Amino acid sequence: MTFPPKDSVGYVYPQTVVFQDTIELESKGYLKGFQLAYETYGTLNNDKSNAILICHALSGDHHVAGYHQCETEAESLKTVGWWNTMIGPGKPIDTDIFFVVCSNNLGGCSGSTGPSSINPETGQQYGTDFPIVTVNDWVKTQAMLSDHLGIKQWAAVAGGSLGGMQALQWSIDFPQRLRHCLVIASAPKLNAQNIGFNDVARQAIRTDPDFHNGNYYSVKTTPSRGMRVARMIGHITYLSEDMMALKFGRSLRKKSKFDYEFTPEFEVESYLRYQGDRFVDRFDANTYLLMTKALDYFDPAAKTNDSLKEALTGVKADFFVASFSSDWRFAPERSREIVRALQSNRVNVSYSEIKCDQGHDSFLLNIDDYMNVMFAYLRRIAKEVGELS
Amino acid sequence: MTFPPKDSVGYVYPQTVVFQDTIELESKGYLKGFQLAYETYGTLNNDKSNAILICHALSGDHHVAGYHQCETEAESLKTVGWWNTMIGPGKPIDTDIFFVVCSNNLGGCSGSTGPSSINPETGQQYGTDFPIVTVNDWVKTQAMLSDHLGIKQWAAVAGGSLGGMQALQWSIDFPQRLRHCLVIASAPKLNAQNIGFNDVARQAIRTDPDFHNGNYYSVKTTPSRGMRVARMIGHITYLSEDMMALKFGRSLRKKSKFDYEFTPEFEVESYLRYQGDRFVDRFDANTYLLMTKALDYFDPAAKTNDSLKEALTGVKADFFVASFSSDWRFAPERSREIVRALQSNRVNVSYSEIKCDQGHDSFLLNIDDYMNVMFAYLRRIAKEVGELS
Repeated sequence: MTFPPKDSVGYVYPQTVVFQDTIELESKGYLKGFQLAYETYGTLNNDKSNAILICHALSGDHHVAGYHQCETEAESLKTVGWWNTMIGPGKPIDTDIFFVVCSNNLGGCSGSTGPSSINPETGQQYGTDFPIVTVNDWVKTQAMLSDHLGIKQWAAVAGGSLGGMQALQWSIDFPQRLRHCLVIASAPKLNAQNIGFNDVARQAIRTDPDFHNGNYYSVKTTPSRGMRVARMIGHITYLSEDMMALKFGRSLRKKSKFDYEFTPEFEVESYLRYQGDRFVDRFDANTYLLMTKALDYFDPAAKTNDSLKEALTGVKADFFVASFSSDWRFAPERSREIVRALQSNRVNVSYSEIKCDQGHDSFLLNIDDYMNVMFAYLRRIAKEVGELS
Repeated sequence: MTFPPKDSVGYVYPQTVVFQDTIELESKGYLKGFQLAYETYGTLNNDKSNAILICHALSGDHHVAGYHQCETEAESLKTVGWWNTMIGPGKPIDTDIFFVVCSNNLGGCSGSTGPSSINPETGQQYGTDFPIVTVNDWVKTQAMLSDHLGIKQWAAVAGGSLGGMQALQWSIDFPQRLRHCLVIASAPKLNAQNIGFNDVARQAIRTDPDFHNGNYYSVKTTPSRGMRVARMIGHITYLSEDMMALKFGRSLRKKSKFDYEFTPEFEVESYLRYQGDRFVDRFDANTYLLMTKALDYFDPAAKTNDSLKEALTGVKADFFVASFSSDWRFAPERSREIVRALQSNRVNVSYSEIKCDQGHDSFLLNIDDYMNVMFAYLRRIAKEVGELS
């Protein structure tokens, strides 16, 4: 087997753009300049009409497809992008047709300016001095990246979960700058339960003695216990009850009977602890806190008396909205709220409710019905922008 | 208004029974003697046929109804028993008719021998030396209490959630010793999601540096950060999504706009943090760990090739099973599993699925339909045991 696989974008390389000017954020906080890390796949056509912007979710980054080149193929294999199932030659978001861009959100920990970056005003890492960022701020800074790339209008802006919220906000803030808006496994705002889970995760991190009020970098520690618990909670909400039953049930961990101890008895305990441990190694706690706060704050209808219809009045894009039957974090009903608001504004919207067991994580997975509707919708976009006849 | 209220059992006083002999537990651990704290309300009739045993859930105790006498009425008012809505003169579990008993489970922290008790073998508090206890152990020790009280057969054994599991186990282990079994908002075993939530809570507690491997008593500390997070997680799972939406929605905490800070922005954050803080003050972390483990281990069908029908073959009691439409911790389907297994054994079972918004906590609340079916069923029991004609 050749590596990288032929249906992937192959080895990819992150790029960086630096913006020198001070930016004021929705929170009234500011940054004296910042940088965004991003990746691109495929080729921008001459009239720059075939570009698709991907927005990432809570723990994602700009590395959305392909592989990073490591010393060995085995190591490279592990670097696969988070939406590699969706993006590549011949895949739904076909890089033989489209020019695909994804940036690491401001406040991130994968190359864009974030809490672990050096604050030019102090010469120290920002830590808790990093301002709160919101979905609106991300859209604003992604628009700056668009300008940098010379892309006046995206063929589509697409995202799942928190990424879907960014796509939705794009359609409100820059109605002329996207032809299509793809909002997948998302919601028009968090509900009290969603906020509750976020706050438990934050409290786990912020009360970890190794958090040091957010300035743990200087003491060379990290709130790993809190991050681990936060990720374990998150993981339960990403999976469906049925999927967990199917995947783990009450299977015991490498044994035939109980030990009656606090070591893992059940497979599901091992799995969640492993997921928690792995996350600690790859993600910055302050960034995690910021991302969950951005989720909490997102509520485009807040400015229009809680009328989502009114918030979406100025929208020009056509919409693709998809939800997953077993997703209880952002259940199909939450997507239907978006669909109804769009329809009442007579916006062209295509809605798919995919029947599957995998819960919220479905948006990242290779599920036939999902791939097929995405493929069909993206082909329609390709025709519109003159890349397919 | 008179205090205590006339429809309550008034001021009540905990009692204690001490068992001197060594008891071996299901985990193969043992205790060289133990004590149980318990309360009783109402009067045991001459033929001792009107006694009802109440089994408590995760964070409950033996103080199930009435009040403890404090210096002031205001303080006494706060000591109301956890199922005071259900138990008292004229209430569904009518103390003018029944003699009601509830004990603090072995391993508890409210008067029964538990991890915070002194280990006679060391002269120190047990801490992590306290053995794992299971639902079977609780039923066994409750049977010892029954003997102590001279009660050969309970008119009913009743419980909600983890309490319902104990009631169910009673019907299996001592089929002749209960006429009726009331299993409310319960499940025949935890599923992977339930176990997952329990393990996250345990990990939050056990990784708290103040846990000191369970021996925090001697260093005069308590894993309060972990307990707080554990309780916050628990609370989200006790409430329904709809109830949280109704109760909190996205209401802001004592302000009209966001502060863009990590202090609580939303009411739901304050509520959960408050619940977490309150719990730390009243509950022992080691006991919490033990109770969640007992939940995980409970699975009567494990010994009968996962056939609940077979596990329930020997059952003699009549059953009352109730579930709540909005309970997602132990959804109605989990109760229906119990009902189906009983029915296939031709056991007399009355099943009620109560439509309400309050989630798992419903079993503790004053919900009309619930109170009415309980009232009717308990009147039937009263007639059977000759206390009503």
